[in-house]
Amino acid sequence: MILRDTLDFLLYDWLDASALTARPRFAEHSRDTFDAVLDTCERIAREKYAPFNRLVDTEEPRAEPAADGSLRVVLPRATHEARAAYAESGMLAAAQDYEHGGMQLPYLVEAAANAFFSKASVSIGSSLLTVGNANLLMAHGTPLQQRVFAANEFNGRWAGTMCLSEPQAGSSLSDVATRAVLEDGSDPLGARYRLKGNKMWISSGEHEMTENIVHLVLAKIPGPDGKLAPGVKGISLFIVPKFLVDVAGPHPDPLPQAGEGGDGSAPLRVTLGPRNDVALAGLNHKLGWRGTINTLLNFGEGKFPVDGQAGAVGYLVGQPGDGLRCMFHMMNEARIAVGMAAVTLGLAGYEASLDYARTRTQGRPLRSSASAAGAAGKDASQPPVRLIEHADIRRMLLAQKATCEGALALLLYCARLVDEQHTGTPEAADEARLLLEVLTPIAKSWPSENALEANSLAIQIHGGYGYTRDFPVEQYWRDNRLNMIHEGTHGIQAIDLLGRKVRIEGGRGLTLLAARMQATIEKAQAHEGMHHDAAALAAALERIGQVTHAAWAGGDASEALANAVPYMQAFGHVVIAWIWLELALAAIATKSEAARAGLVGAKTYFYHYELPKIGAWLRVVENRDTTCAALPEEAF
Amino acid sequence: MILRDTLDFLLYDWLDASALTARPRFAEHSRDTFDAVLDTCERIAREKYAPFNRLVDTEEPRAEPAADGSLRVVLPRATHEARAAYAESGMLAAAQDYEHGGMQLPYLVEAAANAFFSKASVSIGSSLLTVGNANLLMAHGTPLQQRVFAANEFNGRWAGTMCLSEPQAGSSLSDVATRAVLEDGSDPLGARYRLKGNKMWISSGEHEMTENIVHLVLAKIPGPDGKLAPGVKGISLFIVPKFLVDVAGPHPDPLPQAGEGGDGSAPLRVTLGPRNDVALAGLNHKLGWRGTINTLLNFGEGKFPVDGQAGAVGYLVGQPGDGLRCMFHMMNEARIAVGMAAVTLGLAGYEASLDYARTRTQGRPLRSSASAAGAAGKDASQPPVRLIEHADIRRMLLAQKATCEGALALLLYCARLVDEQHTGTPEAADEARLLLEVLTPIAKSWPSENALEANSLAIQIHGGYGYTRDFPVEQYWRDNRLNMIHEGTHGIQAIDLLGRKVRIEGGRGLTLLAARMQATIEKAQAHEGMHHDAAALAAALERIGQVTHAAWAGGDASEALANAVPYMQAFGHVVIAWIWLELALAAIATKSEAARAGLVGAKTYFYHYELPKIGAWLRVVENRDTTCAALPEEAF
Repeated sequence: MILRDTLDFLLYDWLDASALTARPRFAEHSRDTFDAVLDTCERIAREKYAPFNRLVDTEEPRAEPAADGSLRVVLPRATHEARAAYAESGMLAAAQDYEHGGMQLPYLVEAAANAFFSKASVSIGSSLLTVGNANLLMAHGTPLQQRVFAANEFNGRWAGTMCLSEPQAGSSLSDVATRAVLEDGSDPLGARYRLKGNKMWISSGEHEMTENIVHLVLAKIPGPDGKLAPGVKGISLFIVPKFLVDVAGPHPDPLPQAGEGGDGSAPLRVTLGPRNDVALAGLNHKLGWRGTINTLLNFGEGKFPVDGQAGAVGYLVGQPGDGLRCMFHMMNEARIAVGMAAVTLGLAGYEASLDYARTRTQGRPLRSSASAAGAAGKDASQPPVRLIEHADIRRMLLAQKATCEGALALLLYCARLVDEQHTGTPEAADEARLLLEVLTPIAKSWPSENALEANSLAIQIHGGYGYTRDFPVEQYWRDNRLNMIHEGTHGIQAIDLLGRKVRIEGGRGLTLLAARMQATIEKAQAHEGMHHDAAALAAALERIGQVTHAAWAGGDASEALANAVPYMQAFGHVVIAWIWLELALAAIATKSEAARAGLVGAKTYFYHYELPKIGAWLRVVENRDTTCAALPEEAF
Repeated sequence: MILRDTLDFLLYDWLDASALTARPRFAEHSRDTFDAVLDTCERIAREKYAPFNRLVDTEEPRAEPAADGSLRVVLPRATHEARAAYAESGMLAAAQDYEHGGMQLPYLVEAAANAFFSKASVSIGSSLLTVGNANLLMAHGTPLQQRVFAANEFNGRWAGTMCLSEPQAGSSLSDVATRAVLEDGSDPLGARYRLKGNKMWISSGEHEMTENIVHLVLAKIPGPDGKLAPGVKGISLFIVPKFLVDVAGPHPDPLPQAGEGGDGSAPLRVTLGPRNDVALAGLNHKLGWRGTINTLLNFGEGKFPVDGQAGAVGYLVGQPGDGLRCMFHMMNEARIAVGMAAVTLGLAGYEASLDYARTRTQGRPLRSSASAAGAAGKDASQPPVRLIEHADIRRMLLAQKATCEGALALLLYCARLVDEQHTGTPEAADEARLLLEVLTPIAKSWPSENALEANSLAIQIHGGYGYTRDFPVEQYWRDNRLNMIHEGTHGIQAIDLLGRKVRIEGGRGLTLLAARMQATIEKAQAHEGMHHDAAALAAALERIGQVTHAAWAGGDASEALANAVPYMQAFGHVVIAWIWLELALAAIATKSEAARAGLVGAKTYFYHYELPKIGAWLRVVENRDTTCAALPEEAF
């Protein structure tokens, strides 16, 4: 199925997106308005993103000296145009209230629509950080911060970043060394600090696509002794704009104006002031995602002194010490977005290799009966067949389909839970929250590992041509390799899952998930063709329960978590098996016979080829195998 | 272990390379002479290859117009110098007789020594095609062909290529469309033909590193009706030199001269004539192996007419129609070389990530007891620990070690079989031949799939830094992706294994392999710490036998082979499990306690984490699962 057909099936035949329009927040929507959004995004992605995916890979962003002695970033024109078209579509504010210029779109539809962009060009389509940044301010910023910063991000005039990592502390936020010292507690934009430190891996940290850039920066406020507290507790969050801002006169009213702008997020008249003390130190050159600007930023080194002083001006968001809580507020969505990037890259490779397999001829079919010599023969007098007529090519195609469509379904299921969390009944919202806690590590990790493997199969189907830069599949594979690393590595997701998510609130998240799976199993048992699969899923689910218990039976975290990654791999396979049973049940209602056969085929593939793999992964978790952890360092 | 220590263990503690010196061919060798070769190769690789691995990736070969209107290839100076150092080392003629300037080195030692080059820079270290080309001529060429062409390849003055694939026929040699028409059956260099056609994926197809290039070209001789016969039977093999050659006067004696050059491979005085009608049509730009020149060559298009006529001059090697047999004579060694490239890339990544894990600090250790809240905690007041102190990092390191050292051992085991085939007793030689038939598809496929995964783990250990081009691991991963494609794709290896190799001679190859495994199992049963593993290997071996039988029980090749790849994956895991049991037994005798712990740890890792995976793969083979093959095309 092409992506649009798959989305239609998932949204309407499976997740009943239309039902959301019964809720007050989405009451003005209908399937028609949802479809219009999908149409628009599909078109912009086709016209402004896809044709330039190779170009942005080849013409990487480059830093060159600017007139003021700093470094500026030069980008291909295509990147500017794609960003402009995206902003113009209104998708930056898709989820916002009507009164703030938003669309009040369900997150489910927003996520589905954004899939077109990441499939067309994952490294151009990086506007999601701006949305995440502005969403965070809508949740934790003051009304004035919202009207000055978030509103100008939603309308596309400004862009946003997330500045967490530092060169010496990648995944380890407790080692953040950026310092923030109070300068003026009464600034209307928020308590004003001066920041000094270096931030690494900052996407879109410097560019000229927008008038301003809103950096959200994690930094520590030193204690009375001038020292930074160890751990994550001392971390606070700051808005650090590239250009300082002047808000409508010298003493703007920080309170929302009733009538003009409702609760405070309509943009105020803002003029840009001098450059803040944030300087591009360099660009990172990566294996993939080469169209994305990835920067090392120096805050407060004195390159652009403000009022004659070194130190980047930053405005506190939320309370001191509350930085991580604010930042992680948007973590589920950010991780779903990574999973979505992985899965759309997988789908792009699937589509390319399916197309290739349907058109390229290569070799002959096997004779079905082996020759007397015992060797399998081919009949050279026959004309060559298309690649798709070879069994192993079909295996590699179906593996991609089962991986990518299954993962896409999981991601949209999670997106639907986000909507439930925001607009459902209190019980439904609470259940959705807990399910998201458990499912998010899978939604992020499973596609990033398995859709990467799907991309490798797409290369394999192309043979030698797939290994050249004349075909798109090698780029998909390179791009996809990032997804196991950013937004929390595989190892961190696994520790989050087994160390926390399946255990919080007495394991209630896992219990809720098991109940949903059980409901699917019961539905499937009623179907002739699915009761074997239902039994397999029931057995797998039981194993997950046993092994989760066994992992923690010793009460020792380092022992339990030594095999957290194999646990997560198995858990992910069980979740995707459940999703496939769901999809096969939903497929019964679809009109297209080919689509139904494809969905049922992919489900069968997953149950026959993939689900049995959990045995090997779970074995070491259950045994709390310490072969790796116990090996002396000098023995490696 | 570093590579040299691993090689020492494998060659001397395990494979008893010294015993080869008891054979007449190797009688003048000793461990000292073997070590001297290893020393030299290690040094050249360190000085001339490793420092330039990133440079040759960045400064790809480029084609530019030459004075004569053709395209010439420009390479970095480092590539010229590396090639010169390699030629000077004598390694091109390592296996040749003393009287032809060779070293009469066992293939085992040659393969081990070449590992240094592919580990240092796989895409510079591509001299193996020249050796393969010349070896083929030593087996199938006339004495004069050997003295003119092979001898000048062994001494490094000329280089060689293998021209099999064509743009329309990648893996499908039966579709070769290059035509060869007889011009003069009495040329002393061999029956002279004129060739016309296009050859794709030709490594080192054009360059100026050597005075001449000897292309070995597969082409079809048309029948009396002017048509090319279908299938592979009509394929013949031709020597097509880039520059035509004049051999010592107008009528050289084609027979070997007794005394001066023995049996015909000592070089004659040869002068280079005019350019032959072979033209570079373009360079392929790949995901990896960017230091290697990969070309599309046009033969006989008239760019360089010979005697006023279009058509590349080629000299027949062997008999008409015998081309494939000649070409595949060297196939086992060529495939072992691909496996070696894969495994050395894996080892390079392992070494880099081990080094990184030992020095980079990141995060805190887990508290061993979980907190009351049920979440696993970290103590931020502790200083950060080195990456290698995290259990998941150790898991990823040990996975790489188990994969790469195990695969290296298999490859050297195969190399040792090549020596046995050439210098063993008739029975031993025959047994070695059959074992190689069965093991070669594994020696090629298993490292190319699994060492690629090891490279991915090396990236993962580096976190975000591993994804940048500032660290070497992303290049290893890109380079390694080729190995599942060239020299017979994964799919082709799998069909070769299950369709032919386990069945030829009534399955005697498989029986021989099983007997060797059984011998290892019996040795291991005697050891306290290994009898569990011995039992696991015995059970796995039995499963392989059952499933092989079940796959063919229906007698239908297309059904049996539909899951040939999962079969090969499982078969490979069983072979590597066997190798690890062998290595753990050999480790008992080693002097280094750390090395012993490492080998036993890697063995244990493989038995606990990897071998259990065969269940899922074998299931679909045993069931002759047709989920993929049977899915209607429109359902994808």
